[in-house]
Amino acid sequence: MNNFSALLKKVKSTKANLYGKDFLLTWDKSRNELELVLYVAEALKQLRDHNISAKCFDSGLAISNFRDNSTRTRFSFASACNLLGLEVQDLDEAKSQIAHGETVRETANMISFMTDIIGIRDDMFLGAGHTYMLEVGEALNEGYKKGVLAQRPGIVNLQCDIDHPTQSMADLLHLKNYFGGLDKLKGKKITMTWAYSPSYGKPLSVPQGIIGLMTRFGMEVELAYPEGYSLIPDVVETAKKNAKASGGKFKVSNSMEEAFKNADIVYPKSWAPYSVMQKRTKLLQAGDKEGLKDLEKQCLANNAKFKNWECDEKKMKITKRGKALYMHCLPADITDVSCREGEVSAKIFEKYRIETYIEAGYKPYIIAAMILTNRFKYPVKILKTLCNSGIHRVMA
Amino acid sequence: MNNFSALLKKVKSTKANLYGKDFLLTWDKSRNELELVLYVAEALKQLRDHNISAKCFDSGLAISNFRDNSTRTRFSFASACNLLGLEVQDLDEAKSQIAHGETVRETANMISFMTDIIGIRDDMFLGAGHTYMLEVGEALNEGYKKGVLAQRPGIVNLQCDIDHPTQSMADLLHLKNYFGGLDKLKGKKITMTWAYSPSYGKPLSVPQGIIGLMTRFGMEVELAYPEGYSLIPDVVETAKKNAKASGGKFKVSNSMEEAFKNADIVYPKSWAPYSVMQKRTKLLQAGDKEGLKDLEKQCLANNAKFKNWECDEKKMKITKRGKALYMHCLPADITDVSCREGEVSAKIFEKYRIETYIEAGYKPYIIAAMILTNRFKYPVKILKTLCNSGIHRVMA
Amino acid sequence: MNNFSALLKKVKSTKANLYGKDFLLTWDKSRNELELVLYVAEALKQLRDHNISAKCFDSGLAISNFRDNSTRTRFSFASACNLLGLEVQDLDEAKSQIAHGETVRETANMISFMTDIIGIRDDMFLGAGHTYMLEVGEALNEGYKKGVLAQRPGIVNLQCDIDHPTQSMADLLHLKNYFGGLDKLKGKKITMTWAYSPSYGKPLSVPQGIIGLMTRFGMEVELAYPEGYSLIPDVVETAKKNAKASGGKFKVSNSMEEAFKNADIVYPKSWAPYSVMQKRTKLLQAGDKEGLKDLEKQCLANNAKFKNWECDEKKMKITKRGKALYMHCLPADITDVSCREGEVSAKIFEKYRIETYIEAGYKPYIIAAMILTNRFKYPVKILKTLCNSGIHRVMA
Repeated sequence: MNNFSALLKKVKSTKANLYGKDFLLTWDKSRNELELVLYVAEALKQLRDHNISAKCFDSGLAISNFRDNSTRTRFSFASACNLLGLEVQDLDEAKSQIAHGETVRETANMISFMTDIIGIRDDMFLGAGHTYMLEVGEALNEGYKKGVLAQRPGIVNLQCDIDHPTQSMADLLHLKNYFGGLDKLKGKKITMTWAYSPSYGKPLSVPQGIIGLMTRFGMEVELAYPEGYSLIPDVVETAKKNAKASGGKFKVSNSMEEAFKNADIVYPKSWAPYSVMQKRTKLLQAGDKEGLKDLEKQCLANNAKFKNWECDEKKMKITKRGKALYMHCLPADITDVSCREGEVSAKIFEKYRIETYIEAGYKPYIIAAMILTNRFKYPVKILKTLCNSGIHRVMA
Repeated sequence: MNNFSALLKKVKSTKANLYGKDFLLTWDKSRNELELVLYVAEALKQLRDHNISAKCFDSGLAISNFRDNSTRTRFSFASACNLLGLEVQDLDEAKSQIAHGETVRETANMISFMTDIIGIRDDMFLGAGHTYMLEVGEALNEGYKKGVLAQRPGIVNLQCDIDHPTQSMADLLHLKNYFGGLDKLKGKKITMTWAYSPSYGKPLSVPQGIIGLMTRFGMEVELAYPEGYSLIPDVVETAKKNAKASGGKFKVSNSMEEAFKNADIVYPKSWAPYSVMQKRTKLLQAGDKEGLKDLEKQCLANNAKFKNWECDEKKMKITKRGKALYMHCLPADITDVSCREGEVSAKIFEKYRIETYIEAGYKPYIIAAMILTNRFKYPVKILKTLCNSGIHRVMA
Repeated sequence: MNNFSALLKKVKSTKANLYGKDFLLTWDKSRNELELVLYVAEALKQLRDHNISAKCFDSGLAISNFRDNSTRTRFSFASACNLLGLEVQDLDEAKSQIAHGETVRETANMISFMTDIIGIRDDMFLGAGHTYMLEVGEALNEGYKKGVLAQRPGIVNLQCDIDHPTQSMADLLHLKNYFGGLDKLKGKKITMTWAYSPSYGKPLSVPQGIIGLMTRFGMEVELAYPEGYSLIPDVVETAKKNAKASGGKFKVSNSMEEAFKNADIVYPKSWAPYSVMQKRTKLLQAGDKEGLKDLEKQCLANNAKFKNWECDEKKMKITKRGKALYMHCLPADITDVSCREGEVSAKIFEKYRIETYIEAGYKPYIIAAMILTNRFKYPVKILKTLCNSGIHRVMA
């Protein structure tokens, strides 16, 4: 634990404070606030790696509300909560009375009487996920203000229609450690590129999260996709502004090969075009199964025109010294492994497979850091207390 | 925590003891036993509000067995268990082998080897829910007596076909605090009235729970419903006897307006007629889908005759000084919010919305108190120990 | 706690070590290793029975992966984990992204970043369950070796296609206590026999587990089934070898009556023939519903020829002094209770019902012992520390 105090100094030096602030979009946070989360995540990892308990809650609930399937994020959230001493209780809307027409504001209060944190995944409906989280937040504000709730639970966005901050922040922590520091990212080129997938309707939140976050750190961010596969215009605007402010670059192009040129990092991942997601949202909301089938058919046909958007050996050679870091939020569509033709060739994926697992391994700590900084005014004090008490996580 | 010792004195003064006694029906409990639960609930709330851990279990399981959907009660049970240090394990009958024809007495033992408390919701089948809980209790008695179980887990009724004690007790605690004491309830008029709903088959346990409990405290209880919407006759008899014994009143009428007159509290809520629930139970047990559809149609048509049974501004004006407290177990069918025509107008619900949330907020503490008094012989001692140890719930 | 130190001596005297070793098949373990698990299970039971906390984890996750329905084992696993301080997180494959074609090696790592133990039930596909567990183990080995995982979680087999070690070890502990010691089992005759059931497709793992384990302790094991209902040949071979090595006997016969002769213990339980399970596995994997229906029909017709394979009073009289111990893993198909004609008559089952419940009650402790011995190098030290610290499980 030599560098634990060094880490605490870094935490302190951010002078940032996320106490009581929901974590919904990375671009709502200052750079210092983002760094605060990164350093706290690293400190928590140190504690656990040294078998020191990080429990700062003796009891308390953490609600998970997954409106879409999830493995990684579900387990990351559960891990983070358990690490801090919170017990996860799943809000399974199918088993609840919410179907009876209960309002969001009511449910938000009903689940929060003894709740410290609420994690929400809502990425299916464009224009809905982020709005839903804001609505929950407003309801909690009212409940707290009017004496319904003894405390106002925090909210962590576990993926919405706009951003996927626990993913992008874990990715950032991976990059920081891979390249040896946040300052080392300045000037590095990261290519966030569309890739072919035999499925459709994949959310936009990962590519949006990446371009929205990596532009904050002076990186050269290139977004590449086949014509028509654009993202939400507002987020692209945000990325542009971020790049300008941080002394980085942001560029959009329409060729995977072009975008791979000189790249230090590539992030090839499929998504559905913004316009398709808009149509899909309307069809989903209308429950129009026929319409959804037609849309899927049409989209898959369109996807199929871009099967060459696969991250393979040949394209990887175009990157900087042929050695760019490959990233993915997982699971990837791997050619000949999980599908016949996919986002990445088996060879390239295998080469970077362990790296992608390590990348994923930061997520539980990022979530734990988001929870800790939301619930505690003085994270340094809490981390110090934990370290000094030295209670073993596993009996020794 | 000034009034914590005052609260403990109140707990002590009840001289009541619920140690090892299942909490199934409020009318099986003495008035002192009911007060014991109320005061312990308040003491637990005080501890939590002052960030003092209420964990009196270092480990142990709490089984939840929800045979019907639930949000509020599910989360209340989970909150209560977590508060005391028990981990909830859900008995999901769909995922178990119970479908294989396993007997209740066997399942009851199989889930109880390390279990401290079992919470059951079984409100679908008239004549079945309460019976099921008794059957589980008998099986646990046998298992404990014959050395299968090291301890006999307690049972908390989370809603049956007859009573909904965690709801009615939370409602009672709300009334106690709203009016400034249990003694203040004497002579107050509470109107438990049927209200129109566009759905059918709502359980009888809430109105039955209310008339069965509020008649214990010298209140003037009026039950009102359209002809034909009567409750289980036995429970109505119980309410009558209770009122007599406590110096209160109990009256049944068939007009919402009449019942609202001079009311201090109104509780307008839909339910299905007793006779319909009897038919429905038979059809459900027979798996007769056609029959159920016909019954629903017929009932909804009948319900529709009583759309004027809506709690609106005009009717609220009839209540005492036009200022009666509106109560509901939630979720309510709110006209123009959750349905076109419902139990309550949007304006009235909005006026009392926060009050209904506060009402709901007592449930986790009521359940926790039911668990604590079931598991500990000397609740005062436990509460004192918790208070004196002063372990923080959230690290400070 | 007089005999706690005696128990610890027994634990020590095994000189066995299961640290970091997955528990998949009992015949992969030495006799001393099996005894280690038994004694640790008993020590944990003592602690709990004396209200001493057995928490040796301050936090940490235990993943349960049930690929088939379960009540007993699910609750036993949850109980065991809670006893030791681990929180169960269910890997529900229906709610995960695994359906997207994610590989086993990837999922295994994704759920393990903060995981101490993984319990797996996979008994549906012959030739698949055990293989799946090995595959998960390999993936975890790689993840740990390559720095993805900070620790390598242990695996406990909660039932596979070959063995059901938590069941057979609980059965063994029951026998040990029933007869007064492991040494008392030498020479005792246990009859593992097929019995009629009106359902089909029951796994082979219980009979296989029993013949594979009980032959380790010098018992006379007789396996009896109607012609055609054989088990996996490899396992039968293993049982033969075990019997030889331990100075016991192993015999296969085709008559329930013959097998009951002179038996000290009978274990009548239905299973599907090995050859049928092979066909069934292929049909399941092909998703051939018609084929599965045909197979079921054909098998049930075949089963029906052997309705006389019922454990009834008459047959029990054939056993040693008519007093053999009846065992079952539960739930049993009980004639006139859970079905019209089944594995056991109501009278016999009722006579031994409580004994079967007691038998089942060992499972949580067996699982806890498997976890503890997997995660701690020095179980004696841990058990001593727990005992000496004397922290109450329930506040006293």
